[in-house]
Amino acid sequence: MLFQRLEIEMRIEGFRKVLKDSGIECDAAVIHHLADLFYFTGTVQDGFLIIGFEGEPVFAIRRNLERATQETPLRIIENLTGRESLRDLLWRVCGSIPSLVGMALDVMSVVEYEKMRALLGGVKIVDVSPYIRKLRSKKSTRELDLMKGAASIAHAVYEKARNIIAPGVNEWELCAALEYEARLKGNLGIIRVRNRRLEMYFGHVLSGAEAAASSYGDFPTGGLGISPAFSQGATIRKISKGDVISVDTMINSHGYLNDQTRNFALGDIPDILRRAFNFSVELHELFRRKALPGASSGRLYEEVMKAVSATDLSAYFMGCGRNKVGFVGHGIGIEVDEIPFIARNQKTILETGMTIAFEPKFVVPGAGVVGIENTYVITDDGAVSLNLSPEDLVVL
Amino acid sequence: MLFQRLEIEMRIEGFRKVLKDSGIECDAAVIHHLADLFYFTGTVQDGFLIIGFEGEPVFAIRRNLERATQETPLRIIENLTGRESLRDLLWRVCGSIPSLVGMALDVMSVVEYEKMRALLGGVKIVDVSPYIRKLRSKKSTRELDLMKGAASIAHAVYEKARNIIAPGVNEWELCAALEYEARLKGNLGIIRVRNRRLEMYFGHVLSGAEAAASSYGDFPTGGLGISPAFSQGATIRKISKGDVISVDTMINSHGYLNDQTRNFALGDIPDILRRAFNFSVELHELFRRKALPGASSGRLYEEVMKAVSATDLSAYFMGCGRNKVGFVGHGIGIEVDEIPFIARNQKTILETGMTIAFEPKFVVPGAGVVGIENTYVITDDGAVSLNLSPEDLVVL
Repeated sequence: MLFQRLEIEMRIEGFRKVLKDSGIECDAAVIHHLADLFYFTGTVQDGFLIIGFEGEPVFAIRRNLERATQETPLRIIENLTGRESLRDLLWRVCGSIPSLVGMALDVMSVVEYEKMRALLGGVKIVDVSPYIRKLRSKKSTRELDLMKGAASIAHAVYEKARNIIAPGVNEWELCAALEYEARLKGNLGIIRVRNRRLEMYFGHVLSGAEAAASSYGDFPTGGLGISPAFSQGATIRKISKGDVISVDTMINSHGYLNDQTRNFALGDIPDILRRAFNFSVELHELFRRKALPGASSGRLYEEVMKAVSATDLSAYFMGCGRNKVGFVGHGIGIEVDEIPFIARNQKTILETGMTIAFEPKFVVPGAGVVGIENTYVITDDGAVSLNLSPEDLVVL
Repeated sequence: MLFQRLEIEMRIEGFRKVLKDSGIECDAAVIHHLADLFYFTGTVQDGFLIIGFEGEPVFAIRRNLERATQETPLRIIENLTGRESLRDLLWRVCGSIPSLVGMALDVMSVVEYEKMRALLGGVKIVDVSPYIRKLRSKKSTRELDLMKGAASIAHAVYEKARNIIAPGVNEWELCAALEYEARLKGNLGIIRVRNRRLEMYFGHVLSGAEAAASSYGDFPTGGLGISPAFSQGATIRKISKGDVISVDTMINSHGYLNDQTRNFALGDIPDILRRAFNFSVELHELFRRKALPGASSGRLYEEVMKAVSATDLSAYFMGCGRNKVGFVGHGIGIEVDEIPFIARNQKTILETGMTIAFEPKFVVPGAGVVGIENTYVITDDGAVSLNLSPEDLVVL
């Protein structure tokens, strides 16, 4: 099992507390989204977790009962034989017909919701996703250890990159070789997201001036990709002297993600990219100092933007022209789009244990993209990187 | 561009026709789901396609306007500056305030839907997903060519498998090496699904008796995986003499999928697996003959089940014990869970041009899993495999 019973129990108690503190008086919550199920049960199975106001939660399993029993420390696991059975189990957890049930409605389709409403009759359904997300944003020691495991796989990938980046290697082959290395080291190869418009895979390997092409993805860097069916990431462009190569990876180790970017250079690179790289490193120093418990995520964004606007690099920060993105960092853990977002007007207050991918990047038309990204944890002394790879611009 | 303007125009006309034939009198449809956007525009961008009752559709782009312009043959592409702008564009397409607008509600979250409703005021929203899916189920010549491209990448993977499967190689390394080969050949590496509870990656490499472990996935074969965070697929088990190795791959070439399984054996294998393999091949012959235009998908399922129940292999078909799945095939194309489903009580009538992954598999506790899978197209002469790899049990 990935988590001890005590940890799972604390998560469930924590959820009840955050609901209570927020004045949400639901009789039970039905957890259906796989990432949330993983958080509350320690395994990913097809089913629902029913968390009542008190007592033991019931893990209602459509499939796989045996595997659930082996992989979760939860004690009550029931076979889910149909939709009626879900209702009966829910009634049982509540001790009577509930009047208000919580579900994560940002990850439930309208069609699913209508079926659920029909099943539950007159019971009201309230969206509890914001509370699940709030709870999940603060990581336990065990979760941080798993995130360090992901960082260690990423480190192996960057060591590999150092050895194989050379003139004549094409981006696509480089990306495939790095993905292969990550897989050999245990990368699970799936990237969970809450917002299903976020499509991504192992990573973006981008090089030279063409790297400045933006894409449909809500990322500072885009890339042309090799097909309109997935218009982002590596192309078959051959890497050559004078290129900056940006390697942005997303690694999943035991369900926890590491998001990281490192930069490589072949020989002399344009001066503006060198300056932007150095400034990106400075912004990380600023972030490490300022990302303290109690800081507001929106205020932190403004501080970063203020530092950038005092330079001549401002036009290239987080994209170029109308393709700029409105954030410099995002929460990360089981999913890549967790809270907090370090973005304009965000009001999340940072807390110890929150984990954030901070990615101050520069997109310079005609030159390329540059900037590093770290996955950080917030501590009483500021943000501490979970990554192991050196932050220098690796000149090969 | 992946598709010519004529093809995209025919898809849009086809959609209008299927809505009209079904009596859905909406003034416009707003396409938001990325797989559907790809189908109707030929590119994946962040935005909405507004299809009115007549005239040119409007591709409303949040990002990326330049890329959309390069990658779609559609003529009207507008910058989407906010939610108001979506409403204004929709009103413009309709010529007045619409009374009924179609959207795909099986892939729209409740939270998104509520925002959309607030934006559209009193306008009613109707689910048009079944009609989009129906239209998408029949592939054009160009789409079939792209699916053949995916099959050709899969063929390279199976040639590679033939060369590297040997005693002592572990499943995880084998899977990673095959995924690497697929990537080098152009596999896009993302697998689009409609039902977001379907999580999968490149493929399942399963070997020996342990392969019979079932998982939470709605697939006949499961596998233990290497973590409760993703309890399916390859483990670090070493392949050895007497094993059957099942390699099930999902390849994405230019947005179109190939789903395929081939089996390998190291030396002598249990007699029951040999017999089950041969019977799986016989079931493919049955499918090729019976999957004719006009056949009902539910009736076809019953025919397959009848053939199976006449044998002593019935207990192992499509899973074992309570972990059997209720289908033998599924539609495939841009997404892995397209219609038709060859499953109990399904009423879809097969038509020329539909594409189906047929996967009669056997899960034998204590022995392993066996059975091949092909991606087929329905023709007037029955189902024709798009795959290139021989269907034999490769004994190494």
